[in-house]
Amino acid sequence: MAASIVCFGELLLRMSAPGNQRLMQLPELNVHVGGAEANVAVSLARFGHTARMVSCLPDNPLGEAILQDLRGQGVDTTHIQTGDGRVGLYFLETGAVQRPSRIVYDRAHSAFVSRPADAYYWRSILQGADWLHISGITPATGPNAADAALQATRTATELGVRISFDGNYREQLWKAWSGNGPEILAELLSHASLAFINELDVGLIFGESHSDRADAEAAVFARLPRLQHIASTMRHQVSADHHRLTGRLATRDGVWVSREFDMPGIVDRIGGGDAFAGGLLHMLTGTAPLQDVVEFATASAVIKHSVAGDYNRTRIQEVEDLLSRNGLDVRR
Amino acid sequence: MAASIVCFGELLLRMSAPGNQRLMQLPELNVHVGGAEANVAVSLARFGHTARMVSCLPDNPLGEAILQDLRGQGVDTTHIQTGDGRVGLYFLETGAVQRPSRIVYDRAHSAFVSRPADAYYWRSILQGADWLHISGITPATGPNAADAALQATRTATELGVRISFDGNYREQLWKAWSGNGPEILAELLSHASLAFINELDVGLIFGESHSDRADAEAAVFARLPRLQHIASTMRHQVSADHHRLTGRLATRDGVWVSREFDMPGIVDRIGGGDAFAGGLLHMLTGTAPLQDVVEFATASAVIKHSVAGDYNRTRIQEVEDLLSRNGLDVRR
Amino acid sequence: MAASIVCFGELLLRMSAPGNQRLMQLPELNVHVGGAEANVAVSLARFGHTARMVSCLPDNPLGEAILQDLRGQGVDTTHIQTGDGRVGLYFLETGAVQRPSRIVYDRAHSAFVSRPADAYYWRSILQGADWLHISGITPATGPNAADAALQATRTATELGVRISFDGNYREQLWKAWSGNGPEILAELLSHASLAFINELDVGLIFGESHSDRADAEAAVFARLPRLQHIASTMRHQVSADHHRLTGRLATRDGVWVSREFDMPGIVDRIGGGDAFAGGLLHMLTGTAPLQDVVEFATASAVIKHSVAGDYNRTRIQEVEDLLSRNGLDVRR
Amino acid sequence: MAASIVCFGELLLRMSAPGNQRLMQLPELNVHVGGAEANVAVSLARFGHTARMVSCLPDNPLGEAILQDLRGQGVDTTHIQTGDGRVGLYFLETGAVQRPSRIVYDRAHSAFVSRPADAYYWRSILQGADWLHISGITPATGPNAADAALQATRTATELGVRISFDGNYREQLWKAWSGNGPEILAELLSHASLAFINELDVGLIFGESHSDRADAEAAVFARLPRLQHIASTMRHQVSADHHRLTGRLATRDGVWVSREFDMPGIVDRIGGGDAFAGGLLHMLTGTAPLQDVVEFATASAVIKHSVAGDYNRTRIQEVEDLLSRNGLDVRR
Amino acid sequence: MAASIVCFGELLLRMSAPGNQRLMQLPELNVHVGGAEANVAVSLARFGHTARMVSCLPDNPLGEAILQDLRGQGVDTTHIQTGDGRVGLYFLETGAVQRPSRIVYDRAHSAFVSRPADAYYWRSILQGADWLHISGITPATGPNAADAALQATRTATELGVRISFDGNYREQLWKAWSGNGPEILAELLSHASLAFINELDVGLIFGESHSDRADAEAAVFARLPRLQHIASTMRHQVSADHHRLTGRLATRDGVWVSREFDMPGIVDRIGGGDAFAGGLLHMLTGTAPLQDVVEFATASAVIKHSVAGDYNRTRIQEVEDLLSRNGLDVRR
Amino acid sequence: MAASIVCFGELLLRMSAPGNQRLMQLPELNVHVGGAEANVAVSLARFGHTARMVSCLPDNPLGEAILQDLRGQGVDTTHIQTGDGRVGLYFLETGAVQRPSRIVYDRAHSAFVSRPADAYYWRSILQGADWLHISGITPATGPNAADAALQATRTATELGVRISFDGNYREQLWKAWSGNGPEILAELLSHASLAFINELDVGLIFGESHSDRADAEAAVFARLPRLQHIASTMRHQVSADHHRLTGRLATRDGVWVSREFDMPGIVDRIGGGDAFAGGLLHMLTGTAPLQDVVEFATASAVIKHSVAGDYNRTRIQEVEDLLSRNGLDVRR
Repeated sequence: MAASIVCFGELLLRMSAPGNQRLMQLPELNVHVGGAEANVAVSLARFGHTARMVSCLPDNPLGEAILQDLRGQGVDTTHIQTGDGRVGLYFLETGAVQRPSRIVYDRAHSAFVSRPADAYYWRSILQGADWLHISGITPATGPNAADAALQATRTATELGVRISFDGNYREQLWKAWSGNGPEILAELLSHASLAFINELDVGLIFGESHSDRADAEAAVFARLPRLQHIASTMRHQVSADHHRLTGRLATRDGVWVSREFDMPGIVDRIGGGDAFAGGLLHMLTGTAPLQDVVEFATASAVIKHSVAGDYNRTRIQEVEDLLSRNGLDVRR
Repeated sequence: MAASIVCFGELLLRMSAPGNQRLMQLPELNVHVGGAEANVAVSLARFGHTARMVSCLPDNPLGEAILQDLRGQGVDTTHIQTGDGRVGLYFLETGAVQRPSRIVYDRAHSAFVSRPADAYYWRSILQGADWLHISGITPATGPNAADAALQATRTATELGVRISFDGNYREQLWKAWSGNGPEILAELLSHASLAFINELDVGLIFGESHSDRADAEAAVFARLPRLQHIASTMRHQVSADHHRLTGRLATRDGVWVSREFDMPGIVDRIGGGDAFAGGLLHMLTGTAPLQDVVEFATASAVIKHSVAGDYNRTRIQEVEDLLSRNGLDVRR
Repeated sequence: MAASIVCFGELLLRMSAPGNQRLMQLPELNVHVGGAEANVAVSLARFGHTARMVSCLPDNPLGEAILQDLRGQGVDTTHIQTGDGRVGLYFLETGAVQRPSRIVYDRAHSAFVSRPADAYYWRSILQGADWLHISGITPATGPNAADAALQATRTATELGVRISFDGNYREQLWKAWSGNGPEILAELLSHASLAFINELDVGLIFGESHSDRADAEAAVFARLPRLQHIASTMRHQVSADHHRLTGRLATRDGVWVSREFDMPGIVDRIGGGDAFAGGLLHMLTGTAPLQDVVEFATASAVIKHSVAGDYNRTRIQEVEDLLSRNGLDVRR
Repeated sequence: MAASIVCFGELLLRMSAPGNQRLMQLPELNVHVGGAEANVAVSLARFGHTARMVSCLPDNPLGEAILQDLRGQGVDTTHIQTGDGRVGLYFLETGAVQRPSRIVYDRAHSAFVSRPADAYYWRSILQGADWLHISGITPATGPNAADAALQATRTATELGVRISFDGNYREQLWKAWSGNGPEILAELLSHASLAFINELDVGLIFGESHSDRADAEAAVFARLPRLQHIASTMRHQVSADHHRLTGRLATRDGVWVSREFDMPGIVDRIGGGDAFAGGLLHMLTGTAPLQDVVEFATASAVIKHSVAGDYNRTRIQEVEDLLSRNGLDVRR
Repeated sequence: MAASIVCFGELLLRMSAPGNQRLMQLPELNVHVGGAEANVAVSLARFGHTARMVSCLPDNPLGEAILQDLRGQGVDTTHIQTGDGRVGLYFLETGAVQRPSRIVYDRAHSAFVSRPADAYYWRSILQGADWLHISGITPATGPNAADAALQATRTATELGVRISFDGNYREQLWKAWSGNGPEILAELLSHASLAFINELDVGLIFGESHSDRADAEAAVFARLPRLQHIASTMRHQVSADHHRLTGRLATRDGVWVSREFDMPGIVDRIGGGDAFAGGLLHMLTGTAPLQDVVEFATASAVIKHSVAGDYNRTRIQEVEDLLSRNGLDVRR
Repeated sequence: MAASIVCFGELLLRMSAPGNQRLMQLPELNVHVGGAEANVAVSLARFGHTARMVSCLPDNPLGEAILQDLRGQGVDTTHIQTGDGRVGLYFLETGAVQRPSRIVYDRAHSAFVSRPADAYYWRSILQGADWLHISGITPATGPNAADAALQATRTATELGVRISFDGNYREQLWKAWSGNGPEILAELLSHASLAFINELDVGLIFGESHSDRADAEAAVFARLPRLQHIASTMRHQVSADHHRLTGRLATRDGVWVSREFDMPGIVDRIGGGDAFAGGLLHMLTGTAPLQDVVEFATASAVIKHSVAGDYNRTRIQEVEDLLSRNGLDVRR
């Protein structure tokens, strides 16, 4: 059953060194469009839902390229506004062997960050939506976006639109403008019915220390009456391009844990969490058992690790094939 | 001792997405020449034999490029005819992590498929040949090629040219023209002295179910008096680019099984079976013990997995180095 | 504490097949600058030392490109002379799966090889230097370089400049001009306070056979009074691009062995030994315990395996991060 | 004033040799999406209109890539159907010096060609449209598309939707299925209010010979009462990549001819005529004088010659800058 | 005779679309290092002078890449400071046919712009220098750089270091921080002995209107007693990649005008003015007649148009070959 | 009528900077196979003749790549021997605007140069040949090749095989081994029935000065009784990539001059002379009037200027299309 999901966040251009080159080793950069919420929007559009992106871009060839790319993926871009400022960038060096990947952010002063909160008319934007999805990165980018995020969630709650919130605590971004991260994130979280958080997020937001994830989940459920699902992943890192991934989904009634997926020869790790979120939101729009929900979401994240770029360029059938262990030989 | 081998089948252009990109993710395709029998011909030419390709291509830049490529590899292309129709294509997406590789065929209506069976003068083509090699794909492409394949094998049998047949049952191709696959393949197989088949092929061709490979081999030997060798491989798939491979060779007198080769970090899996066939045919032209035959053929297939494109760009020495475990450090 | 190190050897252009292509499979070559001593110089310059390269290049675009590249890395190139002759080349094919990498040398008749020994004024070149680093490849390239290497080490000994010598016995090079490798290398080694050698080098240089590395080290210490440190690595090869590496450092007082580093998904194995030498020389300029010395040197070599090209494009911090097991997830 | 234009025709993938390489000289192809009507749709979408593409594609990665690309350009793709068959291809070699560009078509048996005429519900597709644009290539591809084209124009005429028809007589396509080109094109043309034709088209369609373009225009106006505008270009070819272009627009009342534009250093000539058509349709939706109409359309075509790929990736402002001769130095 | 020249200005990364692609048409960017003063420094270093760059970069891989590149060119980078902020970028689309090239700047908030003026110790930086070269872009980037530029020129005048000033009025940059461009530029110019300005610059700086260049030159000479040489170029644009260039050099005693150079098939127009400045400064360090000075400077600029990237990668010999019309056939 | 032509000369690898980059500006080289006589052989094979290459290559991946490439073009490679030594290289930088192309040779000590003259059995090599083609480069490479060239021409004369000789005086090569160029070339020329020479060659070989080409031709015809045809081209250079070309063919009875061909936007100038020679040899095997001969040869050279690489990748039809001025618009 197709749902209508609104995603609010910044759109970035990723500039990455080709192959396994060190950043700027060769005078050439590969470009991808990304952004935590945009990645979720793309997953949802590919899974057959109506995904509406809310953001702001400058009217220049870089902004135009982002729009084209997202529109090409089937995301509704009619609520992406045009404003003054630059396009946020990040530079990526892909790791190898025992050397981790590295990101150099260059996203300050972007059109999104400079966009005043009152430029977004949430009542009309959220009209008819089933979900509002937002990550902790959005408010961290600056006071305008933080205000806008709060207004979005408050309006969503008023309109009965369910909220999906992805923790993603980014200390450096909060520090850059002395924002009160914990307070803002706590309010956003209080509106959510679905949260992607683990014990680290809980510690950072509520200043609590939890010995394990189950404890943290219990504490958050106790604190936040609107919250129904807490989702997270566990990642074991064998080497820079060999990880193992397990998904987890908690409700007030229990916990569902996916099988562990082995991921040797990772192509691109960026966007793995967003692919998990996209898969989970997709499944929650249906009526599948929660074990199936968490398996699908995790398998969706696993496929993302084989896809270059931030987007999870996949289809439902491909995720299901992975789950049904249909074999790995060439599909003809 | 150099033999003369005639290979009959379609020549295709492979269009593959660069690196680990999804198909058509980037507006760029890498091109390779391939085709099951052509791959065997290239292996044999590189191993010092006279390999003659019999096929049909249109007189356009695509056909010309295929000719140049194959001729460059040392294959005798004088029996590749020119005819109306297109060049058969296939589009390849290379898998990664737990996502398998995928092929989209676009080979219908090719010059090869459209070529009437009576365009090939087998008596003169097979003159002086030691072997005729043909795969189950050739007759599956359509009635013209099926007729031609039957005439080729019948003539070869008459002339005392030994026949090597590689099962390769392709259900989709047979369905596309309602061809009677089992009947045609059974006749082709009945002429063969060497067959590359396993229990699945036996099941599809003869409608029999066999609990294991040895049973299937015994049944086929019982059925087909001309058959002397049955060869096959066992492939264990750890991930999309990590397999393990073992070769097997059966005669009426016994079975020879190669060591298991570990293949992490596979570069290109396409053509692995053809490299096995090429290695095996090469060794059967000599007098080596059958254990050496199956080891060489399997090592040859292992090397193929490290080579981009359909061809097994290797030399005898390199296969022997792998077998003698000469070490893996840089050769200077 | 920054040291001043003089490196003497040939500068080469590496022409490598792109990605995992076989050499000359595609009509395209990637170019890197390298050379055993140059690689050490780059490591040292990146670790904050003054590294001076002594060599000879022709005055053409190839020589100019090498100069630019090395100068860009922060190496002092003012003692790279200009002379008649060509630039030495080597062609590299990167291995995969069970197929090892392969090098085709094309370095004969280079400007370096043709440079008369008396073109180098070692007294002024070595002025103020703490170390002279030289490998066994330098004298092997021909009589001019062999003479120059001997004069360099003799002068260094006179001036109290410590000598670091890296074995690197290259039989083919010695054979090409019938040079007396063992005699020349033995004299060079006799000047060294630090030597990168193992039991194979000892066997080749002194004609002795040693059952294990410890024996060989003891024998060399007994023979050569100036020698203080013997360093070496142990490499276990799982596949062409999956090795394991351990470092070892011996003095007259004991032996220090690093942890074993697992290196799956190797990007570029060339220059691994030079990265080890660079790391070790860097640490010996300080006062760290010898266990830290060998750990750092080995970790430095491990990082090299993740970097394309001959140079170890890294920084001290990155090596230390690896040693402190700071995790492998994306650095933001 | 934004209009709503429906474009009906085949969507093709262009596979072109990189740079000035001969086709298949390098094992690499660049991919672009194109098709005469799609190119017009993209121009119109970029000029601010609602452009709806009507076509048919297979549900495979090639069809999906075309959809994404067109959707990214802002074209309404909701009426692109999914059907059996392949994606039509064409291979392009770009000319140079005195060697012309060359196209090898491989478009037979496509999903578009195989789509039955009754699969399109023109009454609903054309609802609210101002224009229907169609070229002579569409009916030439086969009987299904010819029928569909006739039904489309008949329905458009009934609904009062104006018809724009671009001649584009393709003899080879008509021959391939023995279609009666002149008869079908004559009917299509009889519905048009705007036609892109010259004396050659008139000769082929009506079997008449005209000494000059003005004569041909007069004859067609006399024959076809619905026709209001006839547009065409004159191209002078200095070399393969240096042409000169002039536009022409005729009505029953007069003729307007643009300035001659010099086009040295052409980047990509394909789609030049479609860019002219797109510019002309754009201007006819407004109220500009006809001299401005033909100048804009021709300038739009001139810009296309500087853009790689079939689409005219430009904006109104850029065309106007060219017309106002704003200078050619770098725009900062 | 080698001079010592100090260049002060921002270092930028240019991100350009490959070939003739529109900006962001392909997901790939080519990277070059540039900046008006850096380009002059590179020219001078390549012509045998000591060129010292004074600037500020962040300590990240982008800043490091710029340093390496400039150091590789032989520029003295020891006075390039490290500071907080980003690397200034600009995105370039290369024009074709009648479509001009286009630049999108993204240079606000850079480390250079944020660097306080008192971070530069001009007395020590200028020690032993013959020239200080600075362009009008440097003060335009912001108040810090404007202050620093003023201090630099004042100190240079005190120390007897000659000043070369390149007008380059950039209105957008001045507007962005409401800087008083004319006043600041007038003071900088008042210190100069060599100025690269034309009647437009004179109009913008002094608010005067001059009917022709000679008038403007006379007026400036009258106003500024320290000024000895005024240099400029005249550029005629045939198409986006076909220009004609003439150089001009005025003193209080006369005017010298170079021949007109035809420049068809321009590879890269960026940095042409800097190459002219570099050539002129080079020649003014010698004693050649002024006609030779302006011919060399213009020829140097002409060669730049054939070189990709901002730098003029050439040598004195090559410029002289062009001047001596040594023919255009292949140099073997 | 197909002829059999034997070509004797060195096979080289060309390493060229991509696009218009300066040599080694980017760390990437494009590779092409070439050599004056090989280029002629490829032209002739493409025009339907039997072209047999006689040369020597080392048995390594570079030699193997050359063999494959030439064999792919349809050249008979069975007389290419394997010998010790390296593969000759040349590095190419393509010019632009007013900067000429530049070649850096690195061909000393090649397997061809080192091959003893008696390794070639000319009597058997030339068996059945109609022509022997050889250029002045072959003897210039060293004494072995010079001897071999003399033996080849003497044997050819004995066997009645006609000789085609292309002047190509290369002073640097002769100097490198103090060969007596004039004497050797004069003897080679004395055997020729067809010579590609102009007044410069005549001056260098016979020490004569001729005021114009006609004089030189007359003098040579007077001197050399066997000579029947003298062919040459006139090249006017507008810019680095815009030339004009005219062909000329003289006999004892008259002179035939082709039309002048304009060549703007040259892709690759290398091999233009060889393409002329190939076209001329092709036409002389037939009975066409001499005006047609020189037109075809020149048009063939013109097409070469539009083709990347040394080979003239064309067909007879394409040359004829150019001559019949079939228009320059896209061939569909």
